Amino acid sequence: MPNFSIPNEKLNQAAAILQREGIDCWLSLAAETRMNPDPALDLILDLEMTWLSAFLVTAKDERIAIIGRFDAQPVKEMGGYSEVIAYDEDLFPELLKLLERLNPKTIALNYSENDGASDGLTHGQWLLLTRALAGTPYAERLVSAEGIIRSLRGQKTPSEVERLRQAVRTTEAIIRQIGPRIKAGMSELELYGMVQGLMQAHGVEASWDPCPNVSAGPNTAVGHALPDGDVCLQPGQVVHMDLGVAKDGYVSDMQRVWYLPRPGEKGLPEPVQKAFDAVRGAVVAAAEVLRPGVEGWKVDQASREYIVKAGYPEYRHAVGHHLGRSVHDGAGLLGPLWPRYGKTSSYKVEENNVFTLELGVLVPEYGFVGLEEDVLVKKNGLEWISDPQTEVIIVEG
Amino acid sequence: MPNFSIPNEKLNQAAAILQREGIDCWLSLAAETRMNPDPALDLILDLEMTWLSAFLVTAKDERIAIIGRFDAQPVKEMGGYSEVIAYDEDLFPELLKLLERLNPKTIALNYSENDGASDGLTHGQWLLLTRALAGTPYAERLVSAEGIIRSLRGQKTPSEVERLRQAVRTTEAIIRQIGPRIKAGMSELELYGMVQGLMQAHGVEASWDPCPNVSAGPNTAVGHALPDGDVCLQPGQVVHMDLGVAKDGYVSDMQRVWYLPRPGEKGLPEPVQKAFDAVRGAVVAAAEVLRPGVEGWKVDQASREYIVKAGYPEYRHAVGHHLGRSVHDGAGLLGPLWPRYGKTSSYKVEENNVFTLELGVLVPEYGFVGLEEDVLVKKNGLEWISDPQTEVIIVEG
Repeated sequence: MPNFSIPNEKLNQAAAILQREGIDCWLSLAAETRMNPDPALDLILDLEMTWLSAFLVTAKDERIAIIGRFDAQPVKEMGGYSEVIAYDEDLFPELLKLLERLNPKTIALNYSENDGASDGLTHGQWLLLTRALAGTPYAERLVSAEGIIRSLRGQKTPSEVERLRQAVRTTEAIIRQIGPRIKAGMSELELYGMVQGLMQAHGVEASWDPCPNVSAGPNTAVGHALPDGDVCLQPGQVVHMDLGVAKDGYVSDMQRVWYLPRPGEKGLPEPVQKAFDAVRGAVVAAAEVLRPGVEGWKVDQASREYIVKAGYPEYRHAVGHHLGRSVHDGAGLLGPLWPRYGKTSSYKVEENNVFTLELGVLVPEYGFVGLEEDVLVKKNGLEWISDPQTEVIIVEG
Repeated sequence: MPNFSIPNEKLNQAAAILQREGIDCWLSLAAETRMNPDPALDLILDLEMTWLSAFLVTAKDERIAIIGRFDAQPVKEMGGYSEVIAYDEDLFPELLKLLERLNPKTIALNYSENDGASDGLTHGQWLLLTRALAGTPYAERLVSAEGIIRSLRGQKTPSEVERLRQAVRTTEAIIRQIGPRIKAGMSELELYGMVQGLMQAHGVEASWDPCPNVSAGPNTAVGHALPDGDVCLQPGQVVHMDLGVAKDGYVSDMQRVWYLPRPGEKGLPEPVQKAFDAVRGAVVAAAEVLRPGVEGWKVDQASREYIVKAGYPEYRHAVGHHLGRSVHDGAGLLGPLWPRYGKTSSYKVEENNVFTLELGVLVPEYGFVGLEEDVLVKKNGLEWISDPQTEVIIVEG
């Protein structure tokens, strides 16, 4: 069953953001959303649409939906849209009538070259819309809604933060159960299956697939790799996992690291301790820079400089991403100014953003040492949502 | 964990379809697929991509993937792509090099004004790609991949048909359990919860949300409506459900109808029997026309004319849609020639297509009487995958 409370909360945020962006009207088009979901529309409508539909929010806070008749009733029930127009055969005559009535100077659409979360409009829908608007004044008034969506998605409401907190709490409960279950000889695939079983027992699904990403020892593939049934954990090696769970529509994303000692070994090997300290130090360095108004790349730079100064190679990704309904929750990035990231690393951090802070280094002969924490940006600083890992967990194996 | 067998089977179908369509190269772009999945790419890649990636299949059956480094390993493991190129900072230099090497005369992209299942390319990705190709000969060679995707998605492989069969079998097992659980006084919301419980007991999820759509008696909303906690089933009323389940990535979609007699009542009221016979007759009329080569609208017309001749109003939807990974599995429609359906009702039915056949009528004072069957198109006719409902199920209540 759909949840109406958060989409209605997000709708309540929208008009103020439109005013700030100087945009008269935000128009989301959607069809067959089970196949082609629009991640921006999902924010303000937790419902599946079959036929082509249009959802408009104006800077004056009018909220109007034009929907295929069979999809209309749940939207009426949702309550957040003051006007719900049902059509039978063709959306566009109704949409044109509505645009004539509203006469917006700018119409923002969900496309972006920078941010996937603002890029739910398909190219086919763009073609349909521009064909329908051809010859009208509205054809010249189309702009990207990226600025609207960035803030709407990025500024978490208190209920959204609470759901993120619950996802993190559940992940931490699972993490506490992982250590005692790590045994010498387990393959990455077995470790993966063990964590999947714990997630099931907690009644949650993983935040992505396949999740967790498991690294056992030094002979592992790093990144979004499949767990390997032939790579088995040996004493004297590090286990690393990147894991997250979805709870009530919001997700966590964390990395944790364990060490399986050799028989009789006390404490951590020096290269593992040194790597952990460097990674933890780099996470803290990023956290110290992260505050409202700072551009994302500066947070990444603090962490990147720290890890390089500590004698390790640069990580080949961003130090942080938004966290919300999705594990890569779009909007801005805390990342380097690489072409692959478009402009997303130059965006300014906002109050109530929730980010990951994450990086790692490969320690030859031991394995991958990586950390990822989840943090909330507050007016005057930062709150750790996850309870940060401050030392490598030594398992009995 | 991803499944590689069906994506590899679908990849094996692709080159012959490209040859038939006269297209040299099919290019799928994808990024952050958890937010913006491309339903066409999902056919040939059961993996999540984070960074912008390109998947190319040529008429000569070359299959080449260019992927962000951290996403590359699972694609290599999949085996279906003969060449996997990993990049770090920017996809497009690699893509341009590859296009220079292949020099395709036509490059088909996943956009369509007609078919959502062929419209996974976002408008932002289109802008990125056309900017990168500007000034090269390839900018003039872009066409829609709709024709490719329609056949690739529509022509089910034997393993896909088997999975669809299993989804239908599970749905039928659930349907057999529904009748004995229908009791007088139950609300639509209680009926919904009862079926949701049965799905959980069978270890399957619903094909859409909220599913089942439940109609109890005449005072119900028709279509993709939410189950109503205030509409309760009374003796002398019809219960109708539209339901389907997802199993191993493939879904069912069926409608069934039950009748709760008044105390002492034997048999069905005449208006309910008459409506059921008309609806069942219209389903059969569609089935008699459905064969390879026929245009979709002719199948719909057979059914539409039948129900009107029987004295009922036209249904306001298509008589059938493809069924596969999604409940509305794109490609063509068995529908009327309405603007809302674009060109999809003119496409020709192909061998190994799997369709629903569905319609219903509202019977005043009793409720909604609707049927939906799932059928496989074979060379010389049609196979009913679902065991057709031939009489209204009378419940004890």
